[in-house]
Amino acid sequence: MKDIQNLQDDRRISIRKVGVKTIPYPITVLDRQKKLQHTVATVDMYVNLPHHFKGTHMSRFVEILNRFHGKFDLQKIHLILQEMKEQLDAEAAHLEVRFPYFLERSTSNDAGMERYECRMHGSLQECVDLVMELTVPITLPKSLGRWGYAQVSVRFNEFIWLEDLISRVQQAIRAGAESASVESLCGQLGDALQATSEISWFRVEMENLADGCSTFATVESSLS
Amino acid sequence: MKDIQNLQDDRRISIRKVGVKTIPYPITVLDRQKKLQHTVATVDMYVNLPHHFKGTHMSRFVEILNRFHGKFDLQKIHLILQEMKEQLDAEAAHLEVRFPYFLERSTSNDAGMERYECRMHGSLQECVDLVMELTVPITLPKSLGRWGYAQVSVRFNEFIWLEDLISRVQQAIRAGAESASVESLCGQLGDALQATSEISWFRVEMENLADGCSTFATVESSLS
Amino acid sequence: MKDIQNLQDDRRISIRKVGVKTIPYPITVLDRQKKLQHTVATVDMYVNLPHHFKGTHMSRFVEILNRFHGKFDLQKIHLILQEMKEQLDAEAAHLEVRFPYFLERSTSNDAGMERYECRMHGSLQECVDLVMELTVPITLPKSLGRWGYAQVSVRFNEFIWLEDLISRVQQAIRAGAESASVESLCGQLGDALQATSEISWFRVEMENLADGCSTFATVESSLS
Amino acid sequence: MKDIQNLQDDRRISIRKVGVKTIPYPITVLDRQKKLQHTVATVDMYVNLPHHFKGTHMSRFVEILNRFHGKFDLQKIHLILQEMKEQLDAEAAHLEVRFPYFLERSTSNDAGMERYECRMHGSLQECVDLVMELTVPITLPKSLGRWGYAQVSVRFNEFIWLEDLISRVQQAIRAGAESASVESLCGQLGDALQATSEISWFRVEMENLADGCSTFATVESSLS
Repeated sequence: MKDIQNLQDDRRISIRKVGVKTIPYPITVLDRQKKLQHTVATVDMYVNLPHHFKGTHMSRFVEILNRFHGKFDLQKIHLILQEMKEQLDAEAAHLEVRFPYFLERSTSNDAGMERYECRMHGSLQECVDLVMELTVPITLPKSLGRWGYAQVSVRFNEFIWLEDLISRVQQAIRAGAESASVESLCGQLGDALQATSEISWFRVEMENLADGCSTFATVESSLS
Repeated sequence: MKDIQNLQDDRRISIRKVGVKTIPYPITVLDRQKKLQHTVATVDMYVNLPHHFKGTHMSRFVEILNRFHGKFDLQKIHLILQEMKEQLDAEAAHLEVRFPYFLERSTSNDAGMERYECRMHGSLQECVDLVMELTVPITLPKSLGRWGYAQVSVRFNEFIWLEDLISRVQQAIRAGAESASVESLCGQLGDALQATSEISWFRVEMENLADGCSTFATVESSLS
Repeated sequence: MKDIQNLQDDRRISIRKVGVKTIPYPITVLDRQKKLQHTVATVDMYVNLPHHFKGTHMSRFVEILNRFHGKFDLQKIHLILQEMKEQLDAEAAHLEVRFPYFLERSTSNDAGMERYECRMHGSLQECVDLVMELTVPITLPKSLGRWGYAQVSVRFNEFIWLEDLISRVQQAIRAGAESASVESLCGQLGDALQATSEISWFRVEMENLADGCSTFATVESSLS
Repeated sequence: MKDIQNLQDDRRISIRKVGVKTIPYPITVLDRQKKLQHTVATVDMYVNLPHHFKGTHMSRFVEILNRFHGKFDLQKIHLILQEMKEQLDAEAAHLEVRFPYFLERSTSNDAGMERYECRMHGSLQECVDLVMELTVPITLPKSLGRWGYAQVSVRFNEFIWLEDLISRVQQAIRAGAESASVESLCGQLGDALQATSEISWFRVEMENLADGCSTFATVESSLS
């Protein structure tokens, strides 16, 4: 025991973050049309420890998560973060929830469903910070095959339906489709998000699957 | 033309980065035993553009890369970055090279080769900054199956062989294997890297593939 | 038109199978504890065409699938296959449904959920043939880390809960864990499945994640 | 010992195949322009055991492979298979070698290299049977983005350069590009392969990355 303490004192470095990764977890997500959508998330949970801590009880992460079992939706993220921060004596707590979200495609004549990969990252130090990331596949009107992807990260001022965010992205892409350069499409999507009052911050990465490699461009919201 | 200029003036956001992604590219890497190792990299190239730029010629990225064809090794990264910055009038240039590196396994009696995933990220704004990332699979002495992974990122003071970095990581893990908690192993690897004079900065993420999910811990070098 | 017909006559080869792939689709699966489990499947649908056919209307596949929307469970597979065979004038129809299935882990003290990858392959020529494939992660009692996987494919004589099949696999593995050679564990799992009356046919592939590469063994049920 | 023998006698099932999987291995491949191309393969090796065998020494697989280290090219596959069959007393031996193959793109003005995924499967029971599988990405002349893929499997009558097989596939696709239906493109590629004298057997699976899911078609060579 003593040796371990001494070792600890001599060390110049200390554990920054500890946690659990890739926990499979069924969740429900708010769905405008169907009220609730059942989907399957992958969850990461981790904390920043104070410098004098050497570790923590990993099983506590899963215990906290299990207390929300069957009631886990995205509105619970701040409650889970609070429990993590308190029970693990952490300086900061982080929760990352990745899940596919499904929407029926109404615009195309071949029907079916479209899959959107979503990622909600919540962290709590002094206050809760939430970032939603959404990957929207892009198929241009006259294109054969898949043009590419837009990965949109946003912070919110107020609640916005995932459906509305997705359709905002798709409208901007459709409006800009004639240029079809990855830079101009990315810029036009940035303009559209800048004009969306529910969004306080955004970043877009747009990727065009080109011949042999991909081209990409990014934009980020300005501060004023 | 005029419309585009006006649109440009009204926009509050501008393109941050543009580039090409996931270019397949054969490279050679220095190998202490065999002098050179031929391997196959995946390359990303991108630049930060000045604010008044709307885009760039994507084909120039691949043209620059092709000028180094057959002579691309990690020592050329700063030359490629310089060409990118100059020819694309960029504020900053970035080059990311991911490749598998192979070493014969001499310690175990079942011989064969071990594969290490490497990632070299170079960027040039005022000066060149290089970060090497290396993923080392961990199999503990008495364990059946795969214990987990260590992902080690380092900046260098001077040249160090990939072989030496890998064996430094493996020695630290073997020495700490009795505890086998992800936090203590991670801390001990951090101590070993802190004591390596060729390394000026490091970050470690260690992951233990546990039952149903993974546990992980991170350490980072202190500044003094 | 005429040219196409002539071309058709001169061809020595003809389309074997046509279909749609990787359709994202929410489904419900029978769950012994919770009655129903909502999960997210990936669906492939395809048919063998008669030799004089040159193609089919791809949109019909998705139309058929959409008729079962909100009511798709594994008991509907034979109905979907019948619709496919009839409406597409096919010699044979195939439906493959891949989905993750979740169970709470009661045996281990760290709780949480375990994820099992499942694949149901149904085909209809004269009669319906159903094969269920299940991947069970293996963690041995005294092992640190992940030992490997068992991929179990079965045909049924009568209904068996996924829960029962999974626990049958886990019991056989736990009973054989002392040997821990991939061949003997695989053989013992084969013996256990051979003794399961609900199963009319099986094949097992067992994989041990060893140092640098994996070892594996397969067994298949004998006919009598 | 005796118990194990008895157990063996009572068992109705026996191990079918044993082997090693996903061995990372540097190889050289014949390249028409550069004479030799260095690339990185993933190798699977396995055997069918006689019914009275309970297992084999897994380390022998890697020992055999290591004897060819630095001299492994596709011409050595039949030698490796012979050693496997003899030294492991096997009824049949199997060797699967997956590797990326790179060609400079001369037809497009954006230069760069194209990556082709290859898979060589060799098996030896009475005689050696070799099947080469090649995945060719498809970008249609007027298309934006990626149209899809052709996966071509062939058996050979005589040596054919990978370059020639790839260009045969690309010519057929370019000639048929106007129709752009996955069935007609697939049929036309089948006709082109049927007319290639070096090929004794083929199978093609063609996939079109469509909106939300993929459509696909397959053809296979007729016997006469």
